[in-house]
Amino acid sequence: MARHIYLCPLRWADMDSLGHVNNVTYVDYLQESRVDMLRVHAQATGGEQLAEGTVVVRHEVEFVSPLVFRFEPVRIESWVTRIRRASFTMAYEILDELPDGGRHVYTRARTVLTPYVFAEERPRRIRDQERVVLERFLEPEPVPEGAT
Amino acid sequence: MARHIYLCPLRWADMDSLGHVNNVTYVDYLQESRVDMLRVHAQATGGEQLAEGTVVVRHEVEFVSPLVFRFEPVRIESWVTRIRRASFTMAYEILDELPDGGRHVYTRARTVLTPYVFAEERPRRIRDQERVVLERFLEPEPVPEGAT
Amino acid sequence: MARHIYLCPLRWADMDSLGHVNNVTYVDYLQESRVDMLRVHAQATGGEQLAEGTVVVRHEVEFVSPLVFRFEPVRIESWVTRIRRASFTMAYEILDELPDGGRHVYTRARTVLTPYVFAEERPRRIRDQERVVLERFLEPEPVPEGAT
Amino acid sequence: MARHIYLCPLRWADMDSLGHVNNVTYVDYLQESRVDMLRVHAQATGGEQLAEGTVVVRHEVEFVSPLVFRFEPVRIESWVTRIRRASFTMAYEILDELPDGGRHVYTRARTVLTPYVFAEERPRRIRDQERVVLERFLEPEPVPEGAT
Repeated sequence: MARHIYLCPLRWADMDSLGHVNNVTYVDYLQESRVDMLRVHAQATGGEQLAEGTVVVRHEVEFVSPLVFRFEPVRIESWVTRIRRASFTMAYEILDELPDGGRHVYTRARTVLTPYVFAEERPRRIRDQERVVLERFLEPEPVPEGAT
Repeated sequence: MARHIYLCPLRWADMDSLGHVNNVTYVDYLQESRVDMLRVHAQATGGEQLAEGTVVVRHEVEFVSPLVFRFEPVRIESWVTRIRRASFTMAYEILDELPDGGRHVYTRARTVLTPYVFAEERPRRIRDQERVVLERFLEPEPVPEGAT
Repeated sequence: MARHIYLCPLRWADMDSLGHVNNVTYVDYLQESRVDMLRVHAQATGGEQLAEGTVVVRHEVEFVSPLVFRFEPVRIESWVTRIRRASFTMAYEILDELPDGGRHVYTRARTVLTPYVFAEERPRRIRDQERVVLERFLEPEPVPEGAT
Repeated sequence: MARHIYLCPLRWADMDSLGHVNNVTYVDYLQESRVDMLRVHAQATGGEQLAEGTVVVRHEVEFVSPLVFRFEPVRIESWVTRIRRASFTMAYEILDELPDGGRHVYTRARTVLTPYVFAEERPRRIRDQERVVLERFLEPEPVPEGAT
């Protein structure tokens, strides 16, 4: 029931020729935050396969405001919105916390992931131990009416 | 009414530690294909601002099957599905054409873009000349019932 | 006794915030050209381990003139300057051929590589078959007087 | 007379298909460390043009031992070895400090840089204020006998 916080360091090389962090790079930031969440928190509990042993099934990324290079890392909050038999959905916000307690959001995103057996090139079910890890970050989304 | 075809060369560096083209790199492929479409085809017609003078508002990327490094480029088809006052939506498929005429799809994606005045850090409307360029690639999607 | 020619496609993302192809990206271009040379040409002759089964021991890269994004690929010539027991040296030029027959050079570089057994994390000797592949590209450098 | 210390965070994406931080990525690490040194330390003293207003003239990078992904940043020490009229040379070591006080070195490198006027695409001299910044990090190399 907690969000994972990842303080993502920027690189000078992340800026594109327009001086902004490029849209592609944000998707890398999401990956770094995801690896951090799944690997760090899963270690003690048999969930370590989740960090590298997953493939991305779907990304939805909404770019809210531009980010430019600075030395301070940017905050990425990530959590789990849905756990199914052989896939789960993560949500993220890339943001700065403001001195007045507000939040300046750069990007919102969701990723559907599936555990994957790379040696056999096939998806697999989520194990019970992994489910326990994911449930720690579960913050279900209200399902919109009429949605499947 | 035509799709833009971009033959996207892979780089050995595009493979991640799992031996697949990484999900982040696909998003770069989309960008390369988009720049190619907007820049090449817009040159003669006053649409050249569309290639670099746009920002990504939203990405939806669906990963259908894994792609591994090879020397042959991969085919990216891109087209326009919607043109609004100050934004437009592109769709893409990353695929191989098979000898039997079939298609092996790796990725399907959609991107919402808005023209942007970088000097003033603000979005702007699509110009008439730009609309003409975009309409050349227009292939509207059937709007699902009840969608906004 | 022949140089390997690789026509290296640029990516829009290769430009940094100064509008030039970033110095780091050139080093990736060298890698792509090297993989192309070793993999394509070594296939028939038992030299295929050279392409991926090597590690870089040393790079020397001289940046001669700036390169900016364009749709045309840039030419990379690569060859072998030295073959030792467990390492070899490659040289490269990244350039455009001019209509008048001249050459506009962007970058000159040299790389020392060693074949590597990744499973055991140790270097190994060059095999006879591999030596034959490398000798096809051999163009020895004049050794400067007094050099070791 | 002091070395600049940069604690460089790794990214999961830095690993190549062989599971090592790729040789190209090291060169990016050098860039990040250089920007950090020149920008942070030059701010108060009129040296801020050095960080982004320079171009790389030459890199020499020696790869000493392989680095694999981990969550702890890697230490990069950088300093200045030579200051000339219109160029300067930096040296770097990428390393871990060991509990016993020893150093495990991954990479040693040197870069020659020149201040650059991007608007006019030409190099320029080092300003007096910039020289003061660089001298703070100066640790001249013993010139080998007979070298120019």
